[in-house]
Amino acid sequence: MTISMYQASIPVSIRSLTNLIGILEKGAKYAETKKIDASVLVNSRLYPDMFPLSRQVQIASDIAKRGAAELAGVEAPKFEDNETTLSELIDRIQKTISYLNTFKPEQIDGSEERTITLQMRDRTLSFQGMPFLLYFVLPNVYFHVATAYDILRHCGVEVGKQDFLGSP
Amino acid sequence: MTISMYQASIPVSIRSLTNLIGILEKGAKYAETKKIDASVLVNSRLYPDMFPLSRQVQIASDIAKRGAAELAGVEAPKFEDNETTLSELIDRIQKTISYLNTFKPEQIDGSEERTITLQMRDRTLSFQGMPFLLYFVLPNVYFHVATAYDILRHCGVEVGKQDFLGSP
Repeated sequence: MTISMYQASIPVSIRSLTNLIGILEKGAKYAETKKIDASVLVNSRLYPDMFPLSRQVQIASDIAKRGAAELAGVEAPKFEDNETTLSELIDRIQKTISYLNTFKPEQIDGSEERTITLQMRDRTLSFQGMPFLLYFVLPNVYFHVATAYDILRHCGVEVGKQDFLGSP
Repeated sequence: MTISMYQASIPVSIRSLTNLIGILEKGAKYAETKKIDASVLVNSRLYPDMFPLSRQVQIASDIAKRGAAELAGVEAPKFEDNETTLSELIDRIQKTISYLNTFKPEQIDGSEERTITLQMRDRTLSFQGMPFLLYFVLPNVYFHVATAYDILRHCGVEVGKQDFLGSP
């Protein structure tokens, strides 16, 4: 027995995005309780030239859906990046999870050596499927979900690591 | 072809910890250039009741070495948690990477269904090897490395996502 590409990708991304929804919901509740305009949280960042919460969430969504699509050799849906509230960001993540849930193991399994080419702003990245998943997709998703968490934590939202890890 | 437990664990943790060293080195350089007492960075946090940078690094180290040891059914070395400078934190991560490098694939492969029990402060967690790796060890390592990154980013250190992802 080993780990299939499907097992290591789709349920793992879904779990992290599901936890992100819980974190954003805690943010929304906090804003409500403290009577903070929730857009303050949506636009918060840890440093002036860093992406705000909204963009962290959008990128986590983009990497997860694009990652799955590339492994399956299909085109990912494009989302508008027009969310301005926490509840719109939560909807965005829910839509992403619904999309991930459409993948069947047989679409992803066997993609270990598939050549994946990403056109970035300034360069082209080329990967085989397994390193693409282990060294690009998953750390990228975790990076943006953890940073969304850290932004809200920094704003005083009472989240703890268990919210990031989720329950089995 | 699928992913082996070794492939999904040891080189993945080593990659993330190697990137953490690069991030800490940028922090040390920044402190030197700006004439900031480096202990300010070591003790920085994003919120008063959150762990500072030093503890984030120590926990990333602990989870990575304990994760590998549990999968292999051996006991992980205990480190002192007495680092007070960036260069001591870098040494700690280097020691952790050296330890991870001692594992051979045959020690980790086949651990997908090994029962792993963790005694936490307030409860006992029990996992099978594969979910332990995918849903506990890796997100935990990424969480603490990303948070260490976010703390330094918040302090003005010029790190970018590429420092977190590293190069293939």
